[in-house]
Amino acid sequence: VAKRLEKFKTTIFTQMSMLAIKHGAINLGQGFPNFDGPDFVKEAAIQAIKDGKNQYARGYGVPDFNNALAARFKKDTGLVIDPEKEVTVTSGCTEAIAATMLGLINPGDEVILFAPFYDSYEATLSMAGAKIKCITLRPPDFAVPIDELKSAISKNTRAILINTPHNPTGKMFTREELNTIASLCIENDVLVFMDEVYDKLAFEMDHISMASLPGMYERTVTMNSLGKTFSLTGWKIGWAIAPPHLTWGVRQAHSFLTFATSTPMQWAATVALRAPDSYFEELKRDYMAKKAILVQGLKDVGFKVFPSSGTYFVVVDHTPFGLENDIAFCEYLIKEVGVVAIPTSVFYLNPEEGKNLVRFTFCKDEETLRSAVERMKEKL
Amino acid sequence: VAKRLEKFKTTIFTQMSMLAIKHGAINLGQGFPNFDGPDFVKEAAIQAIKDGKNQYARGYGVPDFNNALAARFKKDTGLVIDPEKEVTVTSGCTEAIAATMLGLINPGDEVILFAPFYDSYEATLSMAGAKIKCITLRPPDFAVPIDELKSAISKNTRAILINTPHNPTGKMFTREELNTIASLCIENDVLVFMDEVYDKLAFEMDHISMASLPGMYERTVTMNSLGKTFSLTGWKIGWAIAPPHLTWGVRQAHSFLTFATSTPMQWAATVALRAPDSYFEELKRDYMAKKAILVQGLKDVGFKVFPSSGTYFVVVDHTPFGLENDIAFCEYLIKEVGVVAIPTSVFYLNPEEGKNLVRFTFCKDEETLRSAVERMKEKL
Ligand SMILES: CSCCC(=O)C(=O)O
Ligand SMILES: CSCCC(=O)C(=O)O
Repeated sequence: VAKRLEKFKTTIFTQMSMLAIKHGAINLGQGFPNFDGPDFVKEAAIQAIKDGKNQYARGYGVPDFNNALAARFKKDTGLVIDPEKEVTVTSGCTEAIAATMLGLINPGDEVILFAPFYDSYEATLSMAGAKIKCITLRPPDFAVPIDELKSAISKNTRAILINTPHNPTGKMFTREELNTIASLCIENDVLVFMDEVYDKLAFEMDHISMASLPGMYERTVTMNSLGKTFSLTGWKIGWAIAPPHLTWGVRQAHSFLTFATSTPMQWAATVALRAPDSYFEELKRDYMAKKAILVQGLKDVGFKVFPSSGTYFVVVDHTPFGLENDIAFCEYLIKEVGVVAIPTSVFYLNPEEGKNLVRFTFCKDEETLRSAVERMKEKL
Repeated sequence: VAKRLEKFKTTIFTQMSMLAIKHGAINLGQGFPNFDGPDFVKEAAIQAIKDGKNQYARGYGVPDFNNALAARFKKDTGLVIDPEKEVTVTSGCTEAIAATMLGLINPGDEVILFAPFYDSYEATLSMAGAKIKCITLRPPDFAVPIDELKSAISKNTRAILINTPHNPTGKMFTREELNTIASLCIENDVLVFMDEVYDKLAFEMDHISMASLPGMYERTVTMNSLGKTFSLTGWKIGWAIAPPHLTWGVRQAHSFLTFATSTPMQWAATVALRAPDSYFEELKRDYMAKKAILVQGLKDVGFKVFPSSGTYFVVVDHTPFGLENDIAFCEYLIKEVGVVAIPTSVFYLNPEEGKNLVRFTFCKDEETLRSAVERMKEKL
């Protein structure tokens, strides 16, 4: 294995999902629904396959899909963009992240991450040869420590990566935090890489796109995907929206990472994005009900549950149960209780910082959530 | 744009396909069929979508598909491999190439390419920080200049990339050439990265996998995809097969480039790979008929046509028509004749070497091929 990837392990999501299968445990680990995506989107994919939309898509996207993405971006942010020059379709948001890092970051550039963070950020920054500066968001509220952020910025800082709603904590960056970060970026000529895959799962406050703040569109790459919003995580349709000078870099990397993304799924995604508002409202209602079940259940079991404003995740402190760290706790939970959660230490540069916290997902049907809670009540 | 990608342009395939649309030209440029993939594979995709196979696949592949790939590899090469440890499913062969380079090549490693070569090799090697040594295969037969190869190998040589059947020339590496390269690799402890996406389009001789030669499996990454063999280039299903120590590197990069590949399409690909031999025989027969039409037509038009043993491409010398180079010729061909071909200079480190050659594809229905020939007969 090349040195750039030496320190990384099999991703925790794969590890845990495989253990879930092996032990017949209820999987509240990796974030994929155990219910299916909407019929109208599946029907659109089937139609596209039947209609022979099965050859290479244009590298940066099927034109109709680029248009639909620009239209949705306008609806979400009020910004009018050029679908031909500012939208790049990728094979999931994971590829959008990789293409952004490899397309825009030079060796030695500094990039600021907020820990805990999704593991691909660190690995793709390592591929790009970036230097990572990491700022920890701390419980209970995971607020941005602005002074630490200020002192982390140097003349070599090229970008700040923000994930809101935030995996794993469910934290949403507040308008005040985003405004402060925006000023710092403008002042210091820093880019923002925005991972917004959970933007439609914002429960306690409105999601705010960095791109929508004054002066920020021109320095922001906004990344998103279809999977979470349409309960079709296996389709791997993502995108990156950015002004032309940044899109150029993203597209160049994308061209050589995957070249193009599944054509029939892009046609289906086009239909998905035109879903009526009622679709998104219902999605949110459903998830709020699921969240209520899981959060109350976890409290009843005896966890300290940290407030989650968005995403389909919630983080708890497992220390009341006396296991030495998050990994030991998760192992116990799989083997003795039959429930899978994700240890959070893998989301930190310094794993020590996550040792008290584990993440549960509520993207499962209500019965599954209730059974998981029952198992924990009985056996923890 | 990051420095590693500064020198690259929009890929020629995208450029030319866009020009084809703009000018209403017949597209014999980018290699995608203008006919559809087989119904039994499309039906399998539709069934998978209906069956709710729509969430994240396991990162390195849906288990059944990994099994089907191992079974096919055994049929093709006689080698028995472990589907769990030696097969990685990727989002097209392009991603397999990127993952192989980023997962196994360190900065400063030397990698040998044979020019002309597919553009992503150079770009992904640049991402990996490799030093490229390039050996040119020259018309008319594009034979490997063994002495040049020998002197290109140094103690820093990490890998040789071989694409057979070869895009753009249609050359197939002979058993003798592969044996010689194999000896050199074993002697000098060099890996082979094998791009075999056209293996089922081998017309004039049998395709030989480097992995099947004695002592070579353990040092070879074999890359392939569904697209060319099943006329479904837009589905973006690829894979890399390699011994566990090499698979580890490929998987680590893959995990962070795309994480996983489209789940329903993997289920469909599983069915595709179990196609009876008659499917592959018919595919070959159809392509040989198409090839005969195009090759004869190009000769009649007045090109010097170089023999192509495999792939759905054929390379010609355009100089009888008096245009200054391949780019000028292709521009003339699009605008004045209404046919798209691919200039080959983009496939060389030194573009001068390709200036007399252009590539046509015959992955189009016979009528389209005939119309293209007619246009050229009339207007060239
Ligand atoms: C590839 S797992 C993607 C993110 C997610 O679903 C998770 O954090 O569980
Ligand atoms: C992404 S284009 C892939 C290769 C091909 O089809 C071509 O060379 O035309």
